[in-house]
Amino acid sequence: MKLQAALDTLSLEDCVALLSETRGSIDIAEVGTPFVIEEGMRPVREFKSKFPEIEVLADVKIMDAGEYEADKCFEAGADICTVLGVSNNATIEGVVRSAKKHGKKVMVDMIEVPDLAARAAEIDAMGVDYICVHTAFDVQKTGKDPLDDLKVVNKVLKHAKSAVAGGVKLNTIDAIVEEGAEIIVVGGFICNAEDRAATAKELKAHLK
Amino acid sequence: MKLQAALDTLSLEDCVALLSETRGSIDIAEVGTPFVIEEGMRPVREFKSKFPEIEVLADVKIMDAGEYEADKCFEAGADICTVLGVSNNATIEGVVRSAKKHGKKVMVDMIEVPDLAARAAEIDAMGVDYICVHTAFDVQKTGKDPLDDLKVVNKVLKHAKSAVAGGVKLNTIDAIVEEGAEIIVVGGFICNAEDRAATAKELKAHLK
Repeated sequence: MKLQAALDTLSLEDCVALLSETRGSIDIAEVGTPFVIEEGMRPVREFKSKFPEIEVLADVKIMDAGEYEADKCFEAGADICTVLGVSNNATIEGVVRSAKKHGKKVMVDMIEVPDLAARAAEIDAMGVDYICVHTAFDVQKTGKDPLDDLKVVNKVLKHAKSAVAGGVKLNTIDAIVEEGAEIIVVGGFICNAEDRAATAKELKAHLK
Repeated sequence: MKLQAALDTLSLEDCVALLSETRGSIDIAEVGTPFVIEEGMRPVREFKSKFPEIEVLADVKIMDAGEYEADKCFEAGADICTVLGVSNNATIEGVVRSAKKHGKKVMVDMIEVPDLAARAAEIDAMGVDYICVHTAFDVQKTGKDPLDDLKVVNKVLKHAKSAVAGGVKLNTIDAIVEEGAEIIVVGGFICNAEDRAATAKELKAHLK
């Protein structure tokens, strides 16, 4: 199991500080979507050069031009890039082509996918590496939690590994670990913690 | 009617050259998604400072954190930002909130929306400015064309104006103009033209 830190709301300098403080606890540094909107691929390049031992995920949520957009991420040094599960199959196939060409990985973000089990099974057959259940930030306040979705996806996956994102905290991580996921994404709970190093270390200690 | 040029595959320097050459023909400069992935909001700032008379659209295709991500675009100077029609209503509502706060505009990209008429009617009631039918780049090679989708959307809109994107060329623009759309998006047909200025001018002359 890997711990992924979603870096969304901090400055590039503060992200670098966070990754230094939490060294040894965080396996994957996610350059979050708002961060890409602001800075493009600069944080990807910066993280790869400063923390070569940490995998970098570019959360670009590709919706079209799959191969072309994924190429941009991998050329910048990303190890993993994301594509939306609601996108056309041709788009996901393009991202997979790009990943294979670069020897890198694809995560499919299942945010807002209507029939999760059926779509996860379809996408699982396309050669992607990770299928991520994701409770949107904008709907977390309704109390929705990604654990039920994780159970649905874990039942159908035959090739890809599962990942989980959306409001994961110390008091919800054990149930996720119990259910099983290759990657657990934590954002605000680390970034907004008073002691980010201790929080990341404690989360990591809960993983199997 | 407005002509929007989608700038996706050129360097920032070449985009600036294109916008200079085509001055008077292009109403809206679109900072395309791959361009945002590479450069973040830098092209938005650059276009606004160099071409204050041209509207700038940030094609960020927001899927979550609507208000937060739209804020980033508008703070950088974008006049319009895009959100996906497949996103959660809460996300679209967040983008609308951000736009109203900044006195800017929202375009909803209907790419891969399953029930176009029903979803367009729902979104039309949310206070967005434009609803854009969009044939994905990755599916244009199947011969699909956005005209039929435009007809579907034009039938249901009561508040928002329609926009159309996806492989629009000189030989398909008249049918679109005839059907009616406030914004017509042209990408490769301008960017890859031998004479970009003449091509943009000719396209613009076909608009009403």
